[in-house]
Amino acid sequence: MPSPEPRTSLELRSLVKSSGELELSLVRTDIPVPAADEVTVRIEATPINPSDQGLLFGAADLSTGRSAGLQDAPAFTATVPPERMKSMAGRVDRSMTVGNEGAGVVIRAGSSPTAQALLGRTVALFGGGTYAQYRNVQAERCLALPDGTRPADAASCFINPLTALGLVETMRREGHRALVHAPAASNLGQMLVRICASDGVELVNIVRSESQRQRLVDMGARHVCDLSVPSFSADLATAVASTGATIAFDAIGGGTLASQLFSAMEAAATSKLREYTRYGSDVLKQVYIYGSLDTGPTILQRNFGLTWSLSGWLLWPFLKKIGPGAEAKLRERVVAELHTTFASPYAKVISLPDALRPDVIAAYGQRATGGKYLINPNL
Amino acid sequence: MPSPEPRTSLELRSLVKSSGELELSLVRTDIPVPAADEVTVRIEATPINPSDQGLLFGAADLSTGRSAGLQDAPAFTATVPPERMKSMAGRVDRSMTVGNEGAGVVIRAGSSPTAQALLGRTVALFGGGTYAQYRNVQAERCLALPDGTRPADAASCFINPLTALGLVETMRREGHRALVHAPAASNLGQMLVRICASDGVELVNIVRSESQRQRLVDMGARHVCDLSVPSFSADLATAVASTGATIAFDAIGGGTLASQLFSAMEAAATSKLREYTRYGSDVLKQVYIYGSLDTGPTILQRNFGLTWSLSGWLLWPFLKKIGPGAEAKLRERVVAELHTTFASPYAKVISLPDALRPDVIAAYGQRATGGKYLINPNL
Repeated sequence: MPSPEPRTSLELRSLVKSSGELELSLVRTDIPVPAADEVTVRIEATPINPSDQGLLFGAADLSTGRSAGLQDAPAFTATVPPERMKSMAGRVDRSMTVGNEGAGVVIRAGSSPTAQALLGRTVALFGGGTYAQYRNVQAERCLALPDGTRPADAASCFINPLTALGLVETMRREGHRALVHAPAASNLGQMLVRICASDGVELVNIVRSESQRQRLVDMGARHVCDLSVPSFSADLATAVASTGATIAFDAIGGGTLASQLFSAMEAAATSKLREYTRYGSDVLKQVYIYGSLDTGPTILQRNFGLTWSLSGWLLWPFLKKIGPGAEAKLRERVVAELHTTFASPYAKVISLPDALRPDVIAAYGQRATGGKYLINPNL
Repeated sequence: MPSPEPRTSLELRSLVKSSGELELSLVRTDIPVPAADEVTVRIEATPINPSDQGLLFGAADLSTGRSAGLQDAPAFTATVPPERMKSMAGRVDRSMTVGNEGAGVVIRAGSSPTAQALLGRTVALFGGGTYAQYRNVQAERCLALPDGTRPADAASCFINPLTALGLVETMRREGHRALVHAPAASNLGQMLVRICASDGVELVNIVRSESQRQRLVDMGARHVCDLSVPSFSADLATAVASTGATIAFDAIGGGTLASQLFSAMEAAATSKLREYTRYGSDVLKQVYIYGSLDTGPTILQRNFGLTWSLSGWLLWPFLKKIGPGAEAKLRERVVAELHTTFASPYAKVISLPDALRPDVIAAYGQRATGGKYLINPNL
């Protein structure tokens, strides 16, 4: 139990300057008194997800990174190549808080009954600015966890679990009966393997190496296609045909994967047609891009008829679309299966100052599968 | 009035042989007695649309085309390059009838009241196989035309008019308030200019030359962007922002146009945001590809957030989705405005044997705007 009662909070800030420089720094701010419907959370665990790194580093070239600032006020700077500054227009010279989600303990609560009920509880939270020692947040954005839950185990309660559940839910709501996922060996991909096994949904997993393929097979995945082998197209066609998958979720984004997915789905559909139609089958083929591990262009060869759709997919609009009741059910499942389906392993736990060290950034900035870092801002 | 009553019909056939050769020929077939709900139409006008040419020529290289067959049984052959044969798999060695729509006179009718009511009437029809002297078709697929309508004026009653109306209807049903169209100087594009002017819908027209731009401006089009000038991207951004268009229909298909459309729509949306969000705006941006004048790949740069969708659009599934009642209303409008909104000019009227002549194919095979041919199979 910390004493005396904290009045200030150290928080991480990311700033892209109009001079073309990224600066990460730690800023001390006052902790406001929580409003009636708010609570103050002492954050003890907050993950560095790929979605956080986009905001954290902007378009900076990390190979130019170096330490800056003073010993008791550390900072990190790197150069943003001039040709990439255009994409930064919306955030130039605006100091941004970082961190989409985390977990910790409620140390103060506003006057509303919902807020008061959380006092002293361990909660997961989302909504930005979690790379901070303390964070005020609306009580309804908190997920109260069973007594005894360690914040480190609950730090990734929202983004990956709700996204994984959201993909399966999207598949169901749009009338498909099996799905394809890439890249499937990610933390989220492994959650999806467990969800689909438990729900009896056929899943085609696309991985990028033999070791990833082996890992998923060891988990019990039935359909695993390795992008790195020459037989990938044929393997994908077979898996898509045998599962009847007509929807795919792709977090790679760039390249020809979406096009290959449409072709495989269309081949499965036309193989069932008795008559030739040059417009292709009338089976709707849907690919969602929900990430950008490959930021290069998406290239469609358009040899898969005219009944297809390629769209962006994002968690927040999806949750808005399904509404609070349906979202609450997904959240309940996350809490119930926190240590099984939704277990998130971390490579390392670091402090806020650690997160600004060039050698540490060089490690977590790789976004390697299985190499996820966790920040404990109160370490 | 033809006599004696015809028993056979000459029809055009397209055949891609497994040897890699395309063959167009004329085949004489018996005219079946119409079923109860069918009529026999003497076809007097049937257009050569881009959508017909896809089936007519398959993947053949027209520069290799030559005459074949005997004088009273003309034929045309051309080579299909080996690398393109894969895309022909569904139709190899199957002799295909050609022609999506046309108009003519009902010379026989089945016993049903709907069929009998059409006897002697001039009708427009669709459903394939219209490059023939006579065609049996379900009565409900016919559009009865006012007395005195010339078949040549009604030959293109379906595809272009219903597509043009379908694009505006899709815009409305999906909640958008203005639309972008490319290529806008086509026959369909000009119909769209007239529909939008009459309906008070803002339309951004994308053309490919100064002469096309001038033609649309002369028609009264307010927003015309020329793809061939260096300021195209800036012109498009301005037009999209000023109209609020968030949906586009693109029959070019290949290249970066869809990507540029998304970028222009997203720029208009984010210019209204007060806070930076690296996921982009929550305004849904929709681009439909409904043709393939450029058969090259579609290339998306994905710098327009995650709220977007790129899809195929095709007339038949659209009509199925809106249902017979809504379709009937669109058809009524086509008949009412046949000589104004939906007027289709032709460069030339040719016979069925003409359609197989290499010099004639060289002319209509160019798919030039304003160069559309009409076949009169009974010439």
